[in-house]
Amino acid sequence: MSKAAARIRTAAISVFAVKGYAAASTRDIAASLSLSPGAVYPHYKSKESLLFAISLEGHTSALAAVKQADPAGESPSVRLTSTVRAYVKWHAQNRDLARVVQYELRSLAPDHFEAIAALRRSTSRVFEQIITDGNTSNEFNTIDIGATTLAITSLGIDVSRWFPSQTYSDPDTLAHAYGELSQRMVGARRRPDSLPDPT
Amino acid sequence: MSKAAARIRTAAISVFAVKGYAAASTRDIAASLSLSPGAVYPHYKSKESLLFAISLEGHTSALAAVKQADPAGESPSVRLTSTVRAYVKWHAQNRDLARVVQYELRSLAPDHFEAIAALRRSTSRVFEQIITDGNTSNEFNTIDIGATTLAITSLGIDVSRWFPSQTYSDPDTLAHAYGELSQRMVGARRRPDSLPDPT
Repeated sequence: MSKAAARIRTAAISVFAVKGYAAASTRDIAASLSLSPGAVYPHYKSKESLLFAISLEGHTSALAAVKQADPAGESPSVRLTSTVRAYVKWHAQNRDLARVVQYELRSLAPDHFEAIAALRRSTSRVFEQIITDGNTSNEFNTIDIGATTLAITSLGIDVSRWFPSQTYSDPDTLAHAYGELSQRMVGARRRPDSLPDPT
Repeated sequence: MSKAAARIRTAAISVFAVKGYAAASTRDIAASLSLSPGAVYPHYKSKESLLFAISLEGHTSALAAVKQADPAGESPSVRLTSTVRAYVKWHAQNRDLARVVQYELRSLAPDHFEAIAALRRSTSRVFEQIITDGNTSNEFNTIDIGATTLAITSLGIDVSRWFPSQTYSDPDTLAHAYGELSQRMVGARRRPDSLPDPT
């Protein structure tokens, strides 16, 4: 991807996050970079192709953050805390991007929506697999794996709606608290006291 | 409020939920009712006054649902399950309204925003009070009351983003699962097995 395309995408994230995708135009995006309205077209043929590029990048990045935080060989308890923290932090630290890619999905063309939905399912499956592993090893006592996975992803996604607040403006503090909550949601029998705080 | 104003408000909820507030116009709302563009003005002087009326109605209704579900004289455990269920159900059953009133707050004028923020704080405080009561009576063992209250409200609000899904299309089923999760989040020592499912 060219530098110009990257600049346009970064500007589009801000414009979409502030105005909402439906109310934003490629003209607004060009104007925010002091470009002429036609300057976006060689890079992105439509506003929707820009949203798709941003969504692909955002959901790939969220999935990578979660996968990278799933330490090989660790217990389900440590893995859950680590991945939940990473997911929450991702939504806090990339708030504008997260808001666009989580809340504007309905504006994607059907085939683009499908591609993004597959990425999102992959992220959910990381949590689901950890919870399933924990239930299998009897380390967790999850009542409803589907609902618990949904609730954990919901907690992360919703961060991009409100973050920061007066009380929570530090991603690590929030990530730590939600990591603790996730242990309780799955009925973890052993507390991951040994896990260091993220730095 | 007149019948005409109520019809306009109902139409506006749909238009705002589908297009987003920023992209919607009072002209769109009038057109959805086969009215002339000027027909909205005698009832609502601006698009923002319509959003405020909808937000006031929506957040008042959510608060009432939660308060009504807080049974007098019951244990914190029963109260938490009952109020969480009511809050989740409210967001599932009033999805369009919930989406508008939870996600379009930033478009309110400052004094209107303040009035709505106060209502939202009142709703959070119902959960916070129950959790505090449960910790005081030693029925709960909540680690962080603020973060837990935030997470519980987040779970409810986020329902309006995605509901219904292929797996969850029944508000009661979802409300039941999230009620169980809330017990775990607060570290409830006694399970509210006696609480009947909502009908």
